[in-house]
Amino acid sequence: MESRLQQIIARVQPLDERAQTLARARQDTLTKPQGSLGRLEALSVQLAGITGDPLPRIQHKVIVTMAGDHGVVAEGVSAYPQEVTPQMVHNFLRGGAAINVLARHVGARVVVVDMGVAAHLEPHRNLMDKKVALGTGNIARGPAMTPEQALQALEAGIAVVEAEVARGLDILGTGDMGIGNTTPSAAIAVALTGHPAVEIVGRGTGVDDAGLARKIAVVEQALTVNRPDPADALDVLAKVGGFEIGGLAGAMLAATAHRRPVVIDGFISGAAAMIAIGLAPQVRPYLIAAHRSQERGHRLMLEWLGLEPLLDLDLRLGEGTGAALGIFLAEAACKILAEMATFGEAGVSEKEK
Amino acid sequence: MESRLQQIIARVQPLDERAQTLARARQDTLTKPQGSLGRLEALSVQLAGITGDPLPRIQHKVIVTMAGDHGVVAEGVSAYPQEVTPQMVHNFLRGGAAINVLARHVGARVVVVDMGVAAHLEPHRNLMDKKVALGTGNIARGPAMTPEQALQALEAGIAVVEAEVARGLDILGTGDMGIGNTTPSAAIAVALTGHPAVEIVGRGTGVDDAGLARKIAVVEQALTVNRPDPADALDVLAKVGGFEIGGLAGAMLAATAHRRPVVIDGFISGAAAMIAIGLAPQVRPYLIAAHRSQERGHRLMLEWLGLEPLLDLDLRLGEGTGAALGIFLAEAACKILAEMATFGEAGVSEKEK
Repeated sequence: MESRLQQIIARVQPLDERAQTLARARQDTLTKPQGSLGRLEALSVQLAGITGDPLPRIQHKVIVTMAGDHGVVAEGVSAYPQEVTPQMVHNFLRGGAAINVLARHVGARVVVVDMGVAAHLEPHRNLMDKKVALGTGNIARGPAMTPEQALQALEAGIAVVEAEVARGLDILGTGDMGIGNTTPSAAIAVALTGHPAVEIVGRGTGVDDAGLARKIAVVEQALTVNRPDPADALDVLAKVGGFEIGGLAGAMLAATAHRRPVVIDGFISGAAAMIAIGLAPQVRPYLIAAHRSQERGHRLMLEWLGLEPLLDLDLRLGEGTGAALGIFLAEAACKILAEMATFGEAGVSEKEK
Repeated sequence: MESRLQQIIARVQPLDERAQTLARARQDTLTKPQGSLGRLEALSVQLAGITGDPLPRIQHKVIVTMAGDHGVVAEGVSAYPQEVTPQMVHNFLRGGAAINVLARHVGARVVVVDMGVAAHLEPHRNLMDKKVALGTGNIARGPAMTPEQALQALEAGIAVVEAEVARGLDILGTGDMGIGNTTPSAAIAVALTGHPAVEIVGRGTGVDDAGLARKIAVVEQALTVNRPDPADALDVLAKVGGFEIGGLAGAMLAATAHRRPVVIDGFISGAAAMIAIGLAPQVRPYLIAAHRSQERGHRLMLEWLGLEPLLDLDLRLGEGTGAALGIFLAEAACKILAEMATFGEAGVSEKEK
């Protein structure tokens, strides 16, 4: 029997070329020199292709922020204690975190998901419980999770997004919370890009030089111990990934299958996007990279993903903060396409031949 | 007797260091790794210093879009006919231009000013009439304007912003409209930076290779004919500038004198900022560069201004479109500072020592 994951992957279609052609043609009739709105114009055409609508409209904006813990924190790879993961989940639920502020600023709702926090969280009306386990295994010593758990994480992400699509979702932003999660994200990037750990591993929330050296050694060790197969993204996720990373990859696949644009955040969302593309390369044109993170390996990650980020503001927070800003730009692009007057409507003379 | 311009320049104060220190200290108590919101954090501190308020609030957002015509279009330096300037002013007044769409998106009001359009415009409740003349002189043959007209343009910009400050203005975005106005802007940049015209002059709204070569020659000729004194910004404005450029420079000076942040748009606003800084170097810390324009010389202009742009989206439209996006980021920065929970409030553990 086909898994839910296989069904979703089978649904992913190429972008709609007709909608893109119509959007491009309309851009060229709007009262501005052709191409003068640069990447906003290209973005509007991409959004037309994704949605299949030559005049795409973004109304319901959703940021899915997934939380999980990581056994690898035992190796001393993070500047913060693991208890911060559940503490920050509570902060999200009370509306006091950066993602809450920026989501309000752009009119998006935040969906907080427990994918595998290493603490029992009180039920809350705004918290989705998709906990796979109380944190992953320590990837420096063995696999992060079983193949069954990897599939469970992916399918949980699919279920979260399908529920949101049912409530109304025109664009998905992805976000993460998980002390230690730049380490598995770096391990995924090293496994899939083939670049050495020293070029990928960064300081995360802010480890010092000794911490950085330790983190590089831990990523190398994780790959030696686990030997993930770069041709098998599910294997990479299971061996060196994380529950929130798997959940985000599933979320991306589901949004794509439903022809919804996905604005990916920084380094952890980038690792999730690598897993999603590893499982289904046809997902790529549905992805919009919000920003270039300050985290070291993000540049090489974006290169592998084939995505050019919209923003470069030295962000390195995660949570979906960059994605929120990216959603604002996607909405701007759609409004330009839909609301600007054409040369004909405005009685403005066109370019001289 | 002191001119209004001299009075305004005398009012410009350094940034408020105490407000900056308090804002910086508060950023470091918010529930995120210190510095992890990168340029948004720095921006919030700058805004605190500008306003003198450790928790600056942006409510009234104003984009001033100034229009003017340029005698130099007689040399064939633009891809569009001069009649497009008044046509686009009408488009602004009807709300169909890109700046209207983006201003609505960020909740800003657009103030359209006729600084010197080469056509008689019907009065309109949303159009401010500050017309200095029906277009400038052809800078390839002589000065753009008289010194008296340059002063008039600057003081008109001051008056426009002071009226808006009285109505409520927490942040100013600058924008321009004027067929041919990349040519005087380039001439100003060549005069003040000392870089050769070939490194500064770009394609504007889209001239072809022959048009570009002609434009470079015209800028060189304008400098040879007029010999503007780089140590005298008023002389540069009068000899090779434009009415909307002078108006925008005045607008920047007035906003600065009233401790309001100024988000400057692209190439033409950059030229105006050069004039403003040439007149009063203490204006610089009040300026926020919204984006790096695709127009060739903008990089060198920003270097001379000492400003690092927030966005790089290949925009080259003007009107204040980039400034609108920059205003959104400035507002995001203020909200982060004001609305995020501190570690203490949220009960989140701080970084391990």
